[in-house]
Amino acid sequence: MTAPSSPDGARPDSRPGSRPESRPESRPVLRLKPKANVRAIRHGSPWVFDNELVMDRRSKAIAPGTIALLEDHERQPLGTVAVNPESRIVARMLDRNADADIDTAWFAKRLSKALSLRERLYDAPFYRLVHAEGDGLPGVVIDRFGDTCVVQPNAAWAETHLDALVDALVSVTGVTNVLKNAGGRGRTLEGLDAEDTVLRGAAPDAAVPVEMNGATYMADLTGGQKTGLFFDQRDNQAFVARLAKGERVLDVFSHVGGFGLAALAGGAAHATCVDGSAAALALASEGAARMGAAERFTARQGDAFDTLAEMAGEDARFGLVICDPPAFAPAKQAVDKGLRAYERIARLAAPLVAEDGYLVLCSCSHAADLNSFTGACLRGIGRSGRRAQLLYSGAAGADHPLLPQLAESGYLKALVFRL
Amino acid sequence: MTAPSSPDGARPDSRPGSRPESRPESRPVLRLKPKANVRAIRHGSPWVFDNELVMDRRSKAIAPGTIALLEDHERQPLGTVAVNPESRIVARMLDRNADADIDTAWFAKRLSKALSLRERLYDAPFYRLVHAEGDGLPGVVIDRFGDTCVVQPNAAWAETHLDALVDALVSVTGVTNVLKNAGGRGRTLEGLDAEDTVLRGAAPDAAVPVEMNGATYMADLTGGQKTGLFFDQRDNQAFVARLAKGERVLDVFSHVGGFGLAALAGGAAHATCVDGSAAALALASEGAARMGAAERFTARQGDAFDTLAEMAGEDARFGLVICDPPAFAPAKQAVDKGLRAYERIARLAAPLVAEDGYLVLCSCSHAADLNSFTGACLRGIGRSGRRAQLLYSGAAGADHPLLPQLAESGYLKALVFRL
Repeated sequence: MTAPSSPDGARPDSRPGSRPESRPESRPVLRLKPKANVRAIRHGSPWVFDNELVMDRRSKAIAPGTIALLEDHERQPLGTVAVNPESRIVARMLDRNADADIDTAWFAKRLSKALSLRERLYDAPFYRLVHAEGDGLPGVVIDRFGDTCVVQPNAAWAETHLDALVDALVSVTGVTNVLKNAGGRGRTLEGLDAEDTVLRGAAPDAAVPVEMNGATYMADLTGGQKTGLFFDQRDNQAFVARLAKGERVLDVFSHVGGFGLAALAGGAAHATCVDGSAAALALASEGAARMGAAERFTARQGDAFDTLAEMAGEDARFGLVICDPPAFAPAKQAVDKGLRAYERIARLAAPLVAEDGYLVLCSCSHAADLNSFTGACLRGIGRSGRRAQLLYSGAAGADHPLLPQLAESGYLKALVFRL
Repeated sequence: MTAPSSPDGARPDSRPGSRPESRPESRPVLRLKPKANVRAIRHGSPWVFDNELVMDRRSKAIAPGTIALLEDHERQPLGTVAVNPESRIVARMLDRNADADIDTAWFAKRLSKALSLRERLYDAPFYRLVHAEGDGLPGVVIDRFGDTCVVQPNAAWAETHLDALVDALVSVTGVTNVLKNAGGRGRTLEGLDAEDTVLRGAAPDAAVPVEMNGATYMADLTGGQKTGLFFDQRDNQAFVARLAKGERVLDVFSHVGGFGLAALAGGAAHATCVDGSAAALALASEGAARMGAAERFTARQGDAFDTLAEMAGEDARFGLVICDPPAFAPAKQAVDKGLRAYERIARLAAPLVAEDGYLVLCSCSHAADLNSFTGACLRGIGRSGRRAQLLYSGAAGADHPLLPQLAESGYLKALVFRL
């Protein structure tokens, strides 16, 4: 065990981000049941579920977001955890050091490590800066847009320690503005509210232009989906852009033009973006205009399934078709239904692809694994009477690192077929 | 069924690449047993095994490499197949059209489709042009190095139809030189010899320089491993090069410098390449010299396992370590042993990685799937006392397309960890 960082073990309460139970000496203790998989936890598994823990009255009374000491059933310390008795994931491992101070300096160390990876990978400060467990900050997602960061505190401990987190964020990155996005699905499971706020500086008064793969995306950091832009498809969009030259391109579920604008940057003759949201399409159009590609761009608002069917009736053909729908199988119970929806997308999209053209099918469903998703796509393509080569199978970019112990849950899949 | 392409069904025997049984009217017939998985074959499965076929005396007497008609057990035609009764894969589907002429024009069509994909993907004519089943030419591998193609006819039908294939290859691509590499493991299973020859033009009298990811690789097209250079790691090397800036890099099992030279092109401070082959290291050194990076490059010949252990003794540390070994688990029987070897590589390599540095672990074993390989890597890293984030999981590049029905067999895995 490491020694306390001050000689007498006492620390000034005024230190930014210091909460009483952030300090080891005043922490509650959570104990594993004998049957818990202590080996998995020692090997890096970051989550401890309610059925693995001795949930006595004292444990149940721990306030959500409290820092605690995790012990095995023989009272050997395992590490410093964040507790939420109201969640199925009662404890999230924060630090293998059982005496870790979860304060501004601790956050700064994690954030510096996360930042150094992104600064190596990207020329400009637009990326996912923190990808939760993968960056050692369970339940915390931070996207960076230049001098503005959007934080999603999706676990109770991140909410209770938000001041220390944001202090560290400003100090490590030098950003001026920090926004809180409370729209994450995880927050409901953690019993948290859904109120977006400004934590530092100000919210930008207009959409922020973001350069990726030669395209310009307009990110709405306050009114948009998620944190304003999906950074996770960057590498997949870069690959697809290489196929786009001279082609007519159809981007279905386009959001602000993720694949469609990348295709235009890659030299596509024309891109049509289809989305249900007029606001997202307006941002896509603005991006195309800023790229000087307005005359090669068409926005078409409508339900994706209906629009695909209509286009088949119009005998439309494209050299490149992309379908990047929302998660059809967000949870295990919805897998079969979700896979049928993915199959239907593939069946409706394939007829719109020209001979020897390319079809890109994506899934951001955790619950549908790569093999199941590939199978659904192939059934759909087959039912449309087409055959396919599989050229490329991509995942989320490296600013979405995975904790290997959770690696099978890599949610994003992007498959590129040639028909 | 389509009509024969000449009104009376007769064709001149002098047509290049025309063999008697290439023409539908003179073909033997292979028939499926009732228990065969006819649905899988109709849905695109390209291989028919001996136990699925009626292997009577007549079928067994078909000469290896003969074109035949495949019928289901009710004598309905399923397609045109290549037959080798001496292989476990007795029939390989060439064309769903049961009347297809397997002649120069047929090859030219497949090659044109393959070429159009590569021309779209790459600026220069250096790539895998044909990736066997994935490009509709079962058992045929063709790598292109500018005006020279290296052909691996790894199935009997490709050997018997080599003239037509090469005529089409020269006509479609305009290459001057065509070499035959007979070193493929598949050839032994097909009962073929191992004699390399020059099929057109001449063999280059020196190693050929190949530009990829800003690096220069020297490819020995006649004396080297496989067809002289591994194109399959191109995208993975591009990703790794992004992590290399300013780092000291160790590339183990480097061959002609695949990752090491890409890292130098990405701005690495220094690269050490380790390989058992002095010839491969000489080519790596020549590549580094051509890049003007000779003073940032060291070659170290030796057994990889021994060298990793020695380096640990020397207290060497690198910001980026890559291990891209040969297939340790080439077949199903060797999986457990292979996974132990991958674990050992990870255990020996991880201690050489600096704090917050990067470790790249690759497998080109068909039989070890992604999850098993990832598990072996994590056990090795864990046994070395390190913990890891998983940043990237890559496969072979898009010039190695997959038939989706065989997609689970994607052989190449490249995992990038941060320790």
